[in-house]
Amino acid sequence: MRPIRPRRAEIIAVGSELLTPFRVDTNSLWLTERLNALGIEVVVKMIVGDDESLLERLVREALTRSEVIVMTGGLGPTEDDVTRKALSRALSRPLVLDEQVLERIRARFARRGLAMPKINERQALVLEGAVVLENRHGTAPGMFVDHEGRALVVLPGPPTEMQAMFESEVVPLLEPLAGGVKIRRRTLRVAGLSESAVDQAIAPIYTQYANPQTTILATTGGIEIHLTASGVTEEEIEARLDELSDRIEQALGARVFTTRGESLEEVIGRLALTKGYTIAVAESVTGGLIAKRLTDVPGSSQYFRGGITAYSDEAKCALLGVPADMLATHGAVSAEVAEAMARRVKESLGATVGVAVTGVAGPGGGTSEKPVGLVFIGLADDVHVESHRHWFPGDRARIRELAAQAALALLYERLL
Amino acid sequence: MRPIRPRRAEIIAVGSELLTPFRVDTNSLWLTERLNALGIEVVVKMIVGDDESLLERLVREALTRSEVIVMTGGLGPTEDDVTRKALSRALSRPLVLDEQVLERIRARFARRGLAMPKINERQALVLEGAVVLENRHGTAPGMFVDHEGRALVVLPGPPTEMQAMFESEVVPLLEPLAGGVKIRRRTLRVAGLSESAVDQAIAPIYTQYANPQTTILATTGGIEIHLTASGVTEEEIEARLDELSDRIEQALGARVFTTRGESLEEVIGRLALTKGYTIAVAESVTGGLIAKRLTDVPGSSQYFRGGITAYSDEAKCALLGVPADMLATHGAVSAEVAEAMARRVKESLGATVGVAVTGVAGPGGGTSEKPVGLVFIGLADDVHVESHRHWFPGDRARIRELAAQAALALLYERLL
Repeated sequence: MRPIRPRRAEIIAVGSELLTPFRVDTNSLWLTERLNALGIEVVVKMIVGDDESLLERLVREALTRSEVIVMTGGLGPTEDDVTRKALSRALSRPLVLDEQVLERIRARFARRGLAMPKINERQALVLEGAVVLENRHGTAPGMFVDHEGRALVVLPGPPTEMQAMFESEVVPLLEPLAGGVKIRRRTLRVAGLSESAVDQAIAPIYTQYANPQTTILATTGGIEIHLTASGVTEEEIEARLDELSDRIEQALGARVFTTRGESLEEVIGRLALTKGYTIAVAESVTGGLIAKRLTDVPGSSQYFRGGITAYSDEAKCALLGVPADMLATHGAVSAEVAEAMARRVKESLGATVGVAVTGVAGPGGGTSEKPVGLVFIGLADDVHVESHRHWFPGDRARIRELAAQAALALLYERLL
Repeated sequence: MRPIRPRRAEIIAVGSELLTPFRVDTNSLWLTERLNALGIEVVVKMIVGDDESLLERLVREALTRSEVIVMTGGLGPTEDDVTRKALSRALSRPLVLDEQVLERIRARFARRGLAMPKINERQALVLEGAVVLENRHGTAPGMFVDHEGRALVVLPGPPTEMQAMFESEVVPLLEPLAGGVKIRRRTLRVAGLSESAVDQAIAPIYTQYANPQTTILATTGGIEIHLTASGVTEEEIEARLDELSDRIEQALGARVFTTRGESLEEVIGRLALTKGYTIAVAESVTGGLIAKRLTDVPGSSQYFRGGITAYSDEAKCALLGVPADMLATHGAVSAEVAEAMARRVKESLGATVGVAVTGVAGPGGGTSEKPVGLVFIGLADDVHVESHRHWFPGDRARIRELAAQAALALLYERLL
C-alpha cells in the first residue's frame, strides 16, 4: 500500500523586490501547477527579502513542517544574493567550491567572448552533499539536497532558468518521492446565489468528504466552488471529483453554469448561439460593464446586438424612449423604468432578449426610500417582461459588479 | 533620538484558493504600501491554506520573529474559515461571543430585509482582550491584539473591507508603534506614451538619483512612474520626491496627468466639470469598457451623457445613424466610421465632446488589410472632428484595454 496523503511542499521565494507593493511572485504559481501534477501539495508559500539570518530561520522552520522545500532566487553573484550562505547555516553544511560548475560558468562567459568576473566565482559554491542542477539558461546552478529525509530544491529566480531546470533536473528527482499520489482540481461556478446561500445548500454534502476538499469563493464572476481531490490513479481521482461534483450539481441545479472553467458570459454566448437568441443591453448604474463583459467573449458579435449606457434621465428618454412622465412618477431607479429600458433596447436593436439595469451605486445619490445599493434588473423578450429588485452591499465598484453579475445571471436563466 | 530601524512586519494571507496556480495575493501589495508609509518594513509575506494547525504554527513562529503581524482572510462564516480558531490556539486566548458585534451583523442583514443565517453567528466570536475593528463593508469584524508586546492585526480578505478597515481602524493603532525612518512613494501616471518612450525620455534624469528609486510600470490605466524615497522626516522625504518628480514632469509635460494617484477617468471628470464639458461615447471594439471606466467615477452623471455600444454594422446604422454606404465603402474599421460615430453620438446625446472607437480585437475577424490590433479612435466637438490610427499588440483583452486607454488619453488632451 502506498500512502494516500500527498507529500507536502512549501515554496520560498527570495528577493527584496518581491516585498515591494509592485511585484507579485508568479514563479510559485507555475511551481504549484507542476508540483501538484507530481502529486505534491503546496501548503505554504513564503516571500522573504535578501536577509540572510531571516532566511536561515524560515528554512529551518519549514524543514520541520514539510517534506519538500522549493526555493527560488537569491543565487546571483552579488553581495545581496544570500540564499547559499543562509542555507549553509540552516542545514549546518559547509559551502564547497565545485570545480566542474566553475568551469561551466567560465565556459559560458567565454562563449560570449568574455572573461568571468571574479564575483561570479561565488556561484560555483554548493552545499556539501548536494546534487548540482545544471542551468542551461544562466550562470547560477541549482541544488537538490536530501536533508534528513526532506527534499530541498534550490532554483534560480529568473522564470526561464527556473522552469527549464525544474523540468529537466528536478522532476526526475522528485517523482520517486511523490509516492504516486496526484492532485486534480475542478471548479463549479454558480450564478444567482450568494456565497452563504451556496454554502447553506451544499455544506451538508461537502462536509461528508475529506477528499475532495471543498472551498467556496466569491468572485466578481460569481460564486466558485473549488474541489481538490487526490488519489493514486487518474481514474480514482476523476471518480471522486465526479461523485461530489454530481451531488453538488443536483443540489444547486442549473445555477451551476459550468464545471469546465467557463465564464458566465461565455456560457451565455454558447446558449445564445445554440438557441438562436440575440441580446441587447440597456445600462444605467453599471455604465457599460455588462456590455463589456458580454463582448469579452470572442465571436460575441454573432449574438450581441449592442448596448446603450443611459446614465442620465435625458439619455433614458433620448436614447431609449423611456417616457418622461414614467421617470417623474416612479423615478429612474424603479421596476417600471427597468422594464421599460429592457423593452425599448430590445426593440430598437431588434434583439430577441433585452436586459436592463438601473440603480444607485453611490456614494452620493441615495435617499431613505432609494438607498445606495438598490438596483432593479429588467428583462424583456417577445412574450414577457419581468423585473427584480436587489439590494447589494459594498462600495460603488462592488455594487456595480454585483449588479452586472445579477443581470447576467438573469439573462442566463432566461436563455436556459 | 528615535530608533532608525523601522518596525518589522509580516503579512499572512489565509485561504486555500491562494495556494492554487490561479490566484495571487494582491492584498499584501496594498498593505505593504500602507505599512511602509507608517515606517513599518515588511520582511516576510506568507500564504497558507484553510489549515487550522498549520496556521496556528505559522502565527506562533511569526510572533517570535517580528513586531507586527498582519493577517488577511479566513474570517468568513463557513466551516473552512479557520483564522479565528487558529489564533485562539496560537495565542492561548479563548474566543468569546461579542454581543455588540452580533447585533451589528444582525442589523446589517436586517437592513437588507434578511434574517441573519445561523452560521454568521460565528463571525461575532472574537479573541479575548482584542480590540474589535468595525467592518463597514461586510459582516466579519477585524481584530487588533496587543500580545506580549507584539501587534497582531486580523483583517477580512475582501479588498474593499480590508482596506477600509485598515485606514479607519488600524492606522490610528499602528501609528504610535512605528519607528523613525519612513518610506514614501509617489506615482506619476502618464497618458499617450508607451513604456519605452517614457523610459527613453526620463532615464537620463532618474539614473542620477539613488534615493528616490524609480520604477516604470505598464498598467491597464497607463504607464506609471513609481518614485520611492526614504528619510527620517516628512519634509526631507517630500523634498526628495518633489525634486525628482518636478524634473520628470518638466520632461514629459502634460502627459503626466496626475501625481496624486488619480485615475485618468477621474482627471477627465475633474476637467470636464471645471470646464463645463459633457461627454458621450460610441464604442465598437471596446464594447462598453470606456463607458464603464468613465462611470467608475462617483458623480460622473454630471458630465457623462451616455454611451452606445454598437457592436454590429446594424447597430452602427440603427443606433448611431452611420450611413450604410460609408460602412460598405470604408468598412466598419476605418477613420471615416470612427469620425462619424464620434460626431453622431455627440449629436444624439447633446454632449460637447464625442469619442468613438472601432477596431479588430480578434482572435477572429482580422484580414491582411485590417489585421487584429488595428483600431481607429475618433473625437468630435463643436468645431472639429479628428481620428487616429493605432496598431496595438497583445491578445483580445489587451487590445481592448489599450484601445480604451488611448481613447481616454485623446479625450484628456482635448479637455486640456
